[in-house]
Amino acid sequence: MAGSAQDIAKAAKAAFEESQLILSDERVKALRIIRDSLESNKAEILRANEEDLAAAKLEVDAGRMSEVMVKRLDLNKGDKWDSMLQGVLDVANLPGPTGTVTYASELDEGLELYRVTCPIGVLLVIFEARPEVVVNIASLAIKSGNAAILKGGKESNHTTSLLSKAISEGLSKTALPVTFIQTIQTRAEVSSLLELDQYIDLIIPRGSNSLVRNIQNNTRIPVMGHADGLCSVYLDEHADLEKSVRVVIDSKTDYPAACNSAENLVIHEAVVHSIWPSVANALLAANVKLLCDSKSLEVLKEFTPPHSNYQSHVLPSEPSSYTTEHLDLTISVIVVPSLTAAIQFINSYSSHHTDSIVSESQQAASTFCRGVDSAGTFVNASTRFADGFRYGFGTEVGISTGRIHARGPVGLEGLVIYKYLLRSKSHGGHIVADFGPGKKQYKHSRIGNTTVPF
Amino acid sequence: MAGSAQDIAKAAKAAFEESQLILSDERVKALRIIRDSLESNKAEILRANEEDLAAAKLEVDAGRMSEVMVKRLDLNKGDKWDSMLQGVLDVANLPGPTGTVTYASELDEGLELYRVTCPIGVLLVIFEARPEVVVNIASLAIKSGNAAILKGGKESNHTTSLLSKAISEGLSKTALPVTFIQTIQTRAEVSSLLELDQYIDLIIPRGSNSLVRNIQNNTRIPVMGHADGLCSVYLDEHADLEKSVRVVIDSKTDYPAACNSAENLVIHEAVVHSIWPSVANALLAANVKLLCDSKSLEVLKEFTPPHSNYQSHVLPSEPSSYTTEHLDLTISVIVVPSLTAAIQFINSYSSHHTDSIVSESQQAASTFCRGVDSAGTFVNASTRFADGFRYGFGTEVGISTGRIHARGPVGLEGLVIYKYLLRSKSHGGHIVADFGPGKKQYKHSRIGNTTVPF
Repeated sequence: MAGSAQDIAKAAKAAFEESQLILSDERVKALRIIRDSLESNKAEILRANEEDLAAAKLEVDAGRMSEVMVKRLDLNKGDKWDSMLQGVLDVANLPGPTGTVTYASELDEGLELYRVTCPIGVLLVIFEARPEVVVNIASLAIKSGNAAILKGGKESNHTTSLLSKAISEGLSKTALPVTFIQTIQTRAEVSSLLELDQYIDLIIPRGSNSLVRNIQNNTRIPVMGHADGLCSVYLDEHADLEKSVRVVIDSKTDYPAACNSAENLVIHEAVVHSIWPSVANALLAANVKLLCDSKSLEVLKEFTPPHSNYQSHVLPSEPSSYTTEHLDLTISVIVVPSLTAAIQFINSYSSHHTDSIVSESQQAASTFCRGVDSAGTFVNASTRFADGFRYGFGTEVGISTGRIHARGPVGLEGLVIYKYLLRSKSHGGHIVADFGPGKKQYKHSRIGNTTVPF
Repeated sequence: MAGSAQDIAKAAKAAFEESQLILSDERVKALRIIRDSLESNKAEILRANEEDLAAAKLEVDAGRMSEVMVKRLDLNKGDKWDSMLQGVLDVANLPGPTGTVTYASELDEGLELYRVTCPIGVLLVIFEARPEVVVNIASLAIKSGNAAILKGGKESNHTTSLLSKAISEGLSKTALPVTFIQTIQTRAEVSSLLELDQYIDLIIPRGSNSLVRNIQNNTRIPVMGHADGLCSVYLDEHADLEKSVRVVIDSKTDYPAACNSAENLVIHEAVVHSIWPSVANALLAANVKLLCDSKSLEVLKEFTPPHSNYQSHVLPSEPSSYTTEHLDLTISVIVVPSLTAAIQFINSYSSHHTDSIVSESQQAASTFCRGVDSAGTFVNASTRFADGFRYGFGTEVGISTGRIHARGPVGLEGLVIYKYLLRSKSHGGHIVADFGPGKKQYKHSRIGNTTVPF
């Protein structure tokens, strides 16, 4: 199809506007049809995926790409294909996020105000190499009623272009416009789209910090970004030993490459002799490298017998240790004199993603949760719970470290906004000139409607 | 105090973080203390206001400022001073927007998730000349728990700096840090602050379109802007004559300089002979200039006897008429062949602020409200109802024409976001490694708590 970025953006906006007159049931039907279209194009899509894989393997051989990347590209690995298709149906079956009345009030006899959830408009979603993301995001966009322009990693261009073709083929059999979901392939197109705030309403970059910042620096369009995940676990003076070990080990080792893994361990000095040695031992047994400040290091030195990998895995920390998202089996450790100091440390060094306190004190827990300015503040629970599926949202659009619109794990609710509907049922309609001193007064009485009655 | 922009922003963030440990009751107390501090500094503040007024009058004499601007500056005019102080108490008495549980779920036996509303963080608010806005915004920020940096128009610098001094004096007698509310005076400071996304969380520019766009072009920080108000009234083929006249007249003439006034009048061709002449007559009687397309003009030509100001007030429209925010007694008129065409016209030409349909058809009204992609879609009601006070929010932070976070008239709710609190009450705490195939399953059962139980 090609077409300039301008044409693509314009077509997306037109498709969005047209879709507003289509009932949301049709969007659910469309998801089922798209699932079938993907299934019937499976052979062709997997052939394209093999092309991408072959090209990627050459890159690996030349030392320009990692094996991990190749695994991510492979759409035929394990149950990836089937779970991608199942994902479409799962999203179809979630409760629809639009058309919900979140506020209703009678402003005057016969004058009713409704605040109703609705799609945002046109999304531009930029994501990394995994080709199945195109299907996932397309499903979320359709379910929530947002038109979308998608850009995947260039390594998966063959695959995503065929996935996208199957999606368009599916859309052509539905009430939705075919241009409701479009894909683009080049960075140049992204750059042009960043200018088009009259057509694009929200950009969702899913990738590195530098990708997010680069986009934020080059557009007026709002960005729902996901910056780093620099999460902490704080062992309070009232921490329980068993909980400390379990929560720290799970937060660090369950999946170290995830953004909700712990990178910093903050220890109240009152428990540095009682709890820290056991936690350290468990971490070392799990092959975790410890970057320690002088106080936590001191304690480990005295600890006998030393753990087998003490020599190789216990190192002094540097100032930069506490601002590093390790994403591997490494954790930075610091001892603090008080709960207040712990909160201040976390507010300064964490990325405001998710931080957990281990404590038996209700009061300390409450202070920590109020004082730590993060999307998630946890008590005696692993930071790894910060996830849309674990939270029970059924899906996850991403994890927002911003503070506007949506914060933390974002479900379908994060892809909607609202509009106000005001209806006069009175003879003569309603005008503001009838209100004021000596005239009519506003009633402002909340009403119970949960759906718009027209 | 001076200090660099960096110092100011840092102090604001520190004040915000410190304030998170202070109960919200203290913020209400602080508002009462600030009100008293303003009252006891009244003489000094009004003297400063006279200085600003004297300087402004020189500008008016030199032809560099309008009389309207001078009126806006005058803090001693009518009941402006008293209503400014009353405004502080009114905001104090509104329901607090923070600490509300908006979602609560038991993820597992003894593992509870709470989504709780909380302040956004540090706001940078930039506004026009009216000096009382500094007090208004400071009140809203304190009530919602956000620290704020305020920049007023340079014409009111003397006044705002003394208002700000009185606010600081008040804050110094409260539990809140004095730097919770700070003011700055220069554009250079604003420019520096736009860089500091690590300290500032949201920018709210209240002024011209060009101010908003200029800020959006120069910052990574999210902007909650208020672009123009290009509102329309659409007279449907099923419009009632009396409602048409009343709604159009009120939308256009109640307060033409307001953003929620109508600028475009869209008429279904079926009523161009039956309804338009009466509406035109009423508009002309109200001294409104009509910029007409050929069809609406044709009808008026045939109309006898012509209205006294027909010659001077009925003019052919130009393409640019429909994209102009007149802000005075002028309206652009266009005839369309269908409801669908009306919706398309409005989506292309309106600023997605507020648009109204006049129609007796429930179905046409419903189609209009779904199809028109604006913050407010009204039925048989004046566009002038689009206002935080009229909607019953008790206050208005602004009217957002964005589609992220808050849309339309924004009350205190627009100044909050949420965080997730997760608490394990179980022996051993909670870790994700205990969940999965063959292990524990998530419960995800919604619970009824409306406050956080710790």
